Amino acid sequence: MLKVYLSGEIHTDWREQIIAGASGLDISFSSPVTDHGASDDCGVAIMGAEPNKFWHDNKGAKLNAIRTRKGLADADVVVVRFGEKYKQWNAAFDAGYAAALGKSLIIVHGDDHQHALKEVDAAALAVCDDPKQVAEILRYVLTGELPA
Amino acid sequence: MLKVYLSGEIHTDWREQIIAGASGLDISFSSPVTDHGASDDCGVAIMGAEPNKFWHDNKGAKLNAIRTRKGLADADVVVVRFGEKYKQWNAAFDAGYAAALGKSLIIVHGDDHQHALKEVDAAALAVCDDPKQVAEILRYVLTGELPA
Amino acid sequence: MLKVYLSGEIHTDWREQIIAGASGLDISFSSPVTDHGASDDCGVAIMGAEPNKFWHDNKGAKLNAIRTRKGLADADVVVVRFGEKYKQWNAAFDAGYAAALGKSLIIVHGDDHQHALKEVDAAALAVCDDPKQVAEILRYVLTGELPA
Amino acid sequence: MLKVYLSGEIHTDWREQIIAGASGLDISFSSPVTDHGASDDCGVAIMGAEPNKFWHDNKGAKLNAIRTRKGLADADVVVVRFGEKYKQWNAAFDAGYAAALGKSLIIVHGDDHQHALKEVDAAALAVCDDPKQVAEILRYVLTGELPA
Amino acid sequence: MLKVYLSGEIHTDWREQIIAGASGLDISFSSPVTDHGASDDCGVAIMGAEPNKFWHDNKGAKLNAIRTRKGLADADVVVVRFGEKYKQWNAAFDAGYAAALGKSLIIVHGDDHQHALKEVDAAALAVCDDPKQVAEILRYVLTGELPA
Amino acid sequence: MLKVYLSGEIHTDWREQIIAGASGLDISFSSPVTDHGASDDCGVAIMGAEPNKFWHDNKGAKLNAIRTRKGLADADVVVVRFGEKYKQWNAAFDAGYAAALGKSLIIVHGDDHQHALKEVDAAALAVCDDPKQVAEILRYVLTGELPA
Amino acid sequence: MLKVYLSGEIHTDWREQIIAGASGLDISFSSPVTDHGASDDCGVAIMGAEPNKFWHDNKGAKLNAIRTRKGLADADVVVVRFGEKYKQWNAAFDAGYAAALGKSLIIVHGDDHQHALKEVDAAALAVCDDPKQVAEILRYVLTGELPA
Amino acid sequence: MLKVYLSGEIHTDWREQIIAGASGLDISFSSPVTDHGASDDCGVAIMGAEPNKFWHDNKGAKLNAIRTRKGLADADVVVVRFGEKYKQWNAAFDAGYAAALGKSLIIVHGDDHQHALKEVDAAALAVCDDPKQVAEILRYVLTGELPA
Repeated sequence: MLKVYLSGEIHTDWREQIIAGASGLDISFSSPVTDHGASDDCGVAIMGAEPNKFWHDNKGAKLNAIRTRKGLADADVVVVRFGEKYKQWNAAFDAGYAAALGKSLIIVHGDDHQHALKEVDAAALAVCDDPKQVAEILRYVLTGELPA
Repeated sequence: MLKVYLSGEIHTDWREQIIAGASGLDISFSSPVTDHGASDDCGVAIMGAEPNKFWHDNKGAKLNAIRTRKGLADADVVVVRFGEKYKQWNAAFDAGYAAALGKSLIIVHGDDHQHALKEVDAAALAVCDDPKQVAEILRYVLTGELPA
Repeated sequence: MLKVYLSGEIHTDWREQIIAGASGLDISFSSPVTDHGASDDCGVAIMGAEPNKFWHDNKGAKLNAIRTRKGLADADVVVVRFGEKYKQWNAAFDAGYAAALGKSLIIVHGDDHQHALKEVDAAALAVCDDPKQVAEILRYVLTGELPA
Repeated sequence: MLKVYLSGEIHTDWREQIIAGASGLDISFSSPVTDHGASDDCGVAIMGAEPNKFWHDNKGAKLNAIRTRKGLADADVVVVRFGEKYKQWNAAFDAGYAAALGKSLIIVHGDDHQHALKEVDAAALAVCDDPKQVAEILRYVLTGELPA
Repeated sequence: MLKVYLSGEIHTDWREQIIAGASGLDISFSSPVTDHGASDDCGVAIMGAEPNKFWHDNKGAKLNAIRTRKGLADADVVVVRFGEKYKQWNAAFDAGYAAALGKSLIIVHGDDHQHALKEVDAAALAVCDDPKQVAEILRYVLTGELPA
Repeated sequence: MLKVYLSGEIHTDWREQIIAGASGLDISFSSPVTDHGASDDCGVAIMGAEPNKFWHDNKGAKLNAIRTRKGLADADVVVVRFGEKYKQWNAAFDAGYAAALGKSLIIVHGDDHQHALKEVDAAALAVCDDPKQVAEILRYVLTGELPA
Repeated sequence: MLKVYLSGEIHTDWREQIIAGASGLDISFSSPVTDHGASDDCGVAIMGAEPNKFWHDNKGAKLNAIRTRKGLADADVVVVRFGEKYKQWNAAFDAGYAAALGKSLIIVHGDDHQHALKEVDAAALAVCDDPKQVAEILRYVLTGELPA
Repeated sequence: MLKVYLSGEIHTDWREQIIAGASGLDISFSSPVTDHGASDDCGVAIMGAEPNKFWHDNKGAKLNAIRTRKGLADADVVVVRFGEKYKQWNAAFDAGYAAALGKSLIIVHGDDHQHALKEVDAAALAVCDDPKQVAEILRYVLTGELPA
């Protein structure tokens, strides 16, 4: 079984596209919590309010790290998608974290981000711009079949 | 001796500020190549031109990785500074890489980036906004002396 | 599946509270032997009496370490609870052991221990005072659901 | 050269006793910051005040961890002394951390703490109650000479 | 269960011979994509054409590495067969990669390659020239039975 | 599930005693090939005769190492029994190998070997002389139950 | 200081070219024994003759591995050159070994070997065909200076 | 510099022979305490008497392990000599420990021990019977020079 962690952008349905495209394959997918509000507020919701925004965010980010670190540590393949908007430093952080663990990295982004992502792309085993290609990659990796 | 790698923003003199502020301490500093042009073009300058921008950048990013990976691997402490401008995904990538290697992380950034950097900050042992504070941290770590 | 090791205090039912609170989740819990008498005397009960208290305890502590080390090594998440009484150095030892292995740490203690546990808390991804919160954390980590 | 980290109790001169007793040996000693006040307040002194005691302590404990983690990671031998007073959970945490890294542990404590420290002692290669014995151990380890 | 990765030559049916010979044993076999054309062109077929042969091959080799690295990382035993023809540097690369990971290596080759493969053979736990022998080795390793 | 590797002496039924004594427990046992003749001759039986006794033995010992290394690498607990006769250097070798991997060691031997095995015993978490005690240890480790 | 291991082809002066081209840089170079005859016969010359060519070579290859493994393990950068002639499987083996250890790989070969070396090149951070380029790479990595 | 640990038999001058034979080479040798009496009694001499022989020996063996583990961990090459007499299980234990750490092993023993040491020899990169050969091996490894 191939364990694949889907990191990065949370505002489009790219994870669903990959999972659908990879249907029938022996893959176990995992991903961060993709509900933006829950992800931002989880720390204080469970462990108590913080008046200071830094600690509000710190509590949440650490709690999310319990899930993220397990996803990254268990994965054979880490897919990181960079979207059009936002800083997405957590996505690049995950890519670096995965690279240091020796995971196989697949990076997904549009052409406009090519230069800014050159160091991230240079650590990857595959770079593409369409989630459909990720599904094709996973299918090839597991079965040797190429798209028609 | 403490080995400190200074990653991230390359358009201000923050590295010089830290090194000056840490004068007299038993520290060995290292950093990426900070000449933007050389860093961008090193791959093709040495190994031959590439008509395609992706491979132009890929050759350079990999060559720079020889230096970056050694700096990160050898370091006890990795300082990552995020500046005002640009995507700086390589900085976040280095932070993630260092975190996975168990390095002590110090993150430097202004308040405006606080929310976007919450996952990176959550992996750090110190977060501040002024390079002078990094020098004070290093002095305290090595000597136990606090700023007057 | 998430593997969770429940270390520390053995005189209240906090483990049962967490396990009950986490019912329905895909978690495998483990814990040390919580029968105080058996835990103290296991070494001599199986391998023969020792007139010297140090070796009596040494035999038992090592035998218990077979279980403890496996629980810590296998775990994704290590929860360590500090109770009101006793020195509980084995709990802090487990926390340090887990931290060095890179496990996600959740620390549970009352406010009165806050200052004395600051180094332990600083290594944790979550700190709380109520076992119910641990169950909520585990639920969020696995499902993304926050308490109502 | 033998690298020895001296962790634990900071209110007596046991470190100086060991260092004096080991004079002439090829040893590099390191230790945490032993100025109690500086150690408690270093975080806020450098990185800004925190109204909440938890975060005040958290900032300091993390900053101290930069020094502590390097001391532990670099050491061949970790000596941990438990004194008469205080909870000393950071000492037990360091012992667990060192054990997980496979360091050679020497534990120093009085008889009254024997039962409470049995798990910590069980992970050690030497247990004694007098700093003078630690110096004798280090001398024997390096030279093969036993005390007269 | 024993996990066995079958690396190397892809132009004869040696993998099938081993799998058939090992029938009934608790073994999970894996191998690279053995369709030469698909293996060569997979990168450009999925991620877009490259006019330059180097990058055409680079894209494919990296994509294949996702499968290869997982096969090698998961394996208990890595079998590498060198055939009569071609350079087969990828086979020797896999053998070195597996050796550095501490995997048990079985090397299969004819006598004519003996001297040229002496460094590879020297890292192996078994060297033979017939796939049938590999099946016998696997049967012995799992059951203790020797061929009649 | 607890994975236990049973190394060492192959001329008495101590393995069977432990397995019987541990019946009903969630343990997966493994062991070397215990057929002395097969173990000695396996290399040449499969890979061809060697006129020189050293290489005859070398071929066999390496082939057996495929099984032994997997057993040791997969184990949570390694039990090593030293019998009355023979040099049994392979048993001590396995004990050292397991110790370096951080496995929990249980050593079984009679009193007459106590002094000669002191370094091996010093690396163990339990030392006893009767296989029945090993079964009791395993039962306690998994269930917390002590022998009546 | 940068530690560089120069693996591969031993019939031309490429090592000397690199070392000369890197003069003045803070680099420590190491390499295998490059005297072909000594390298082939070292095992039997020291440890006694072997009538069988396989064991003659095996003894030598293992003895050379003492040097090779240290060179690879200590290196920051591993340069592997493939020449025009011979199988050079040991070069590819070293490349795989270095890749698995996470070393920065630089591969040097002529165009005619491009397709056959695609898997090896895909694991490298730099690929070139002239030793002079390796010296330029090392100079850039250490000083940031590009060739005029 | 090559770090060499000399483990095993302590009743002949084989260590001195190797050190003399390797004079002029860039080697740092280390070894266990070779004073039999001191080695046996060091634990009780420093940390207090034990009426029970097992604990007497246990205290000493653990204290010696501080030196032994450092010697093994730091070494590039571990030489283990088996003499004519005694069980020498500690020597075989060291060999197994070194093998699991991936150290280059050189085993020295007479012909009469060949069969009993076959598993130990099978983990070695060189096997010989004369300390003079070890010196020749070390000279070849460092300089490429073979004995005249």
